[in-house]
Amino acid sequence: MTRTELKALRRRYETELFESVLPFWVRHSPDRGNGGFFNCLDRDGRVYDTTKHVWLQGRQVWMLSKLCRTVEPRKDWLELARSGAEFLRKHCRLPDGRVAFSVSAEGKPVYVQRKIFSECFYVLALSEYARAADEPALLKEAQSQFEKIWAWAFDWTKVGRPSYPGETPKQSLAVPMILLNLMEELSDGDPRPYSAEVDECIRRLRLHVKADTRRVHEFTAPDGSLLDSPDGRLLNPGHAIEAGWFLQHWAARLKRDDLSREAADIVRWSFESGWDAEHGGLFYFQDAEGFSALPLESRMKLWWPHCEALYAHLLNYSITRSPADRDAFKKTDAYAFSKFRDPEYGEWFGYLDRRGEPTHRFKGGPYKGCFHVPRALWLCWRLLKTLEERP
Amino acid sequence: MTRTELKALRRRYETELFESVLPFWVRHSPDRGNGGFFNCLDRDGRVYDTTKHVWLQGRQVWMLSKLCRTVEPRKDWLELARSGAEFLRKHCRLPDGRVAFSVSAEGKPVYVQRKIFSECFYVLALSEYARAADEPALLKEAQSQFEKIWAWAFDWTKVGRPSYPGETPKQSLAVPMILLNLMEELSDGDPRPYSAEVDECIRRLRLHVKADTRRVHEFTAPDGSLLDSPDGRLLNPGHAIEAGWFLQHWAARLKRDDLSREAADIVRWSFESGWDAEHGGLFYFQDAEGFSALPLESRMKLWWPHCEALYAHLLNYSITRSPADRDAFKKTDAYAFSKFRDPEYGEWFGYLDRRGEPTHRFKGGPYKGCFHVPRALWLCWRLLKTLEERP
Repeated sequence: MTRTELKALRRRYETELFESVLPFWVRHSPDRGNGGFFNCLDRDGRVYDTTKHVWLQGRQVWMLSKLCRTVEPRKDWLELARSGAEFLRKHCRLPDGRVAFSVSAEGKPVYVQRKIFSECFYVLALSEYARAADEPALLKEAQSQFEKIWAWAFDWTKVGRPSYPGETPKQSLAVPMILLNLMEELSDGDPRPYSAEVDECIRRLRLHVKADTRRVHEFTAPDGSLLDSPDGRLLNPGHAIEAGWFLQHWAARLKRDDLSREAADIVRWSFESGWDAEHGGLFYFQDAEGFSALPLESRMKLWWPHCEALYAHLLNYSITRSPADRDAFKKTDAYAFSKFRDPEYGEWFGYLDRRGEPTHRFKGGPYKGCFHVPRALWLCWRLLKTLEERP
Repeated sequence: MTRTELKALRRRYETELFESVLPFWVRHSPDRGNGGFFNCLDRDGRVYDTTKHVWLQGRQVWMLSKLCRTVEPRKDWLELARSGAEFLRKHCRLPDGRVAFSVSAEGKPVYVQRKIFSECFYVLALSEYARAADEPALLKEAQSQFEKIWAWAFDWTKVGRPSYPGETPKQSLAVPMILLNLMEELSDGDPRPYSAEVDECIRRLRLHVKADTRRVHEFTAPDGSLLDSPDGRLLNPGHAIEAGWFLQHWAARLKRDDLSREAADIVRWSFESGWDAEHGGLFYFQDAEGFSALPLESRMKLWWPHCEALYAHLLNYSITRSPADRDAFKKTDAYAFSKFRDPEYGEWFGYLDRRGEPTHRFKGGPYKGCFHVPRALWLCWRLLKTLEERP
């Protein structure tokens, strides 16, 4: 891309992030009474449910803290992050060390999943807020919570998930990928502190990648072999693409070109097979053998896979300078900005049907908050600046 | 409707049931090795997952047994029902009295829900098979399992569901309605055996019906008052319509005209507000206040609400002779037969997008089996015969 092109792109991402997306959350999400954030916000920002979903409390704290540290130490951002971090620590972490999935407006637990993701976003929040607010004790707390997560991560019976004799043992891409992201954040770019754990997660992640078919399977047998079942055949292109850029970041830190090439391939393959040739956009789920994937929402187009793809392609392009990576970025950019963006009220729609029509008008829900859109815009904006300044 | 019209309709339903839908399941579902049925069947009947979903094992046993008792005592149907009933009793009922949600092909438990519905379909299966096979001991077994369900039904902490202090107490339409259906089946049309339980379920079901707004809410507070939350505002038109005909059956047994009128209204109101004026078909979920309902599949058109609506409208029409009920039946019939039916391989598609295009090609899945389509066809066919013969 020419410098002029890069500059125009960078400006568009900057405007979208700082003038549309962030103001939406800063204006509408704060719960001034109880602290923390409302995350169920209608198209125009109105609260349609006061339930607080803890993934999104944690993710918003992380996002605001990250912007404070990397863009500008704005008092209003830090104050909001503080309110969220306090709410998390006071209400969302339970006496047994688990973290609730959802709590009431005042912070009483509503539901606790038999999974580890609430704990992950709790750590993400605390680790970044600790640095933004210069509170080292909170970083220690994040590290100690991460040790708990690590002990639970590969055996969910430890967080109450039952195990039955008819189950087929399987491993999930979600676990090594989120742990890689957490360790990147906890170690703030230093590859040393978690080197054995990082190696183990990279090993596990790579078991899902099948070069012969150019597919990334969401679940495999523990030894990486394929399972002939709907779970075993399930593809989740957005997830694989996100795993791709997590791995690309570690490839850079570890200075491993082989890993960088594999990370780039994961993104390219998942984009190729996940893109809807007829209507554009990335499918949510697919079946590797061409059966119908079971989830009812499989053919819908969700905002977050496109957010992940924006940054993953741009990151690949920044490394490879390949026209194919550039074109994939441009294709995703054109689709995302024309279909998901809401110029009227800010932030993006989350859920479109296969043809690209919004099926849900809200901007925030149980799984959508101040995270994927601002994270992708911030990551791309930062990278576009670097590319623009590169000789 | 004229006698000629009724006759043509009756013949169409007869052909669809006995020449397309039933042969699909009889041909493709039996697991000759392990007994029971494969229920994950692709468009053409091919097994794409050998996991057996217990709701559908139970429902298929019920359907085949019912046809043996009410249509023709065919040996192949009874033999299949026997194989399913044996599989259920041998493998799906667990030592603690719970019933698994899914089991492997050989019958090892894969998952047990913290709900009561597997148990309900187990009872449905045994109660009808006991009569079809003339095995009174199995009816006793079904009755005793029903007693367990009754003890658990209104407090799911008894089946392992955790309870958290931030939860808003609520009751679900699903529970009283399925219990009403079970008691209808267990008592084989005799209103006496469960009269107190039936009264209690009718009382609970009616708490969900709001005459002032013509809405049937899927969840309410325990006293029937409305909850201002996504759950509290959730409408599930197909479910409400199904509840309507369950209630209409009890109104007939109890000879209560007031209940009959209320049952008819439930169906009409839910059909009116649930019908998509733009593309036709019933929405899966709606929000009573016009927010976007949270489930991603809310705007999809599912086969089963249309199956329920076919019979519910025809039943209303058989009682009221109202042109509005007749037209609602015809509208549903035209949509269902043109959109869901698969003339090529038999049975119906289950999942369409808002515009009526199939999103999933399979005929059987974790929640779709030999049940809603043949039940609706059988109920309508039987009622059409009665109407045809009526002077």
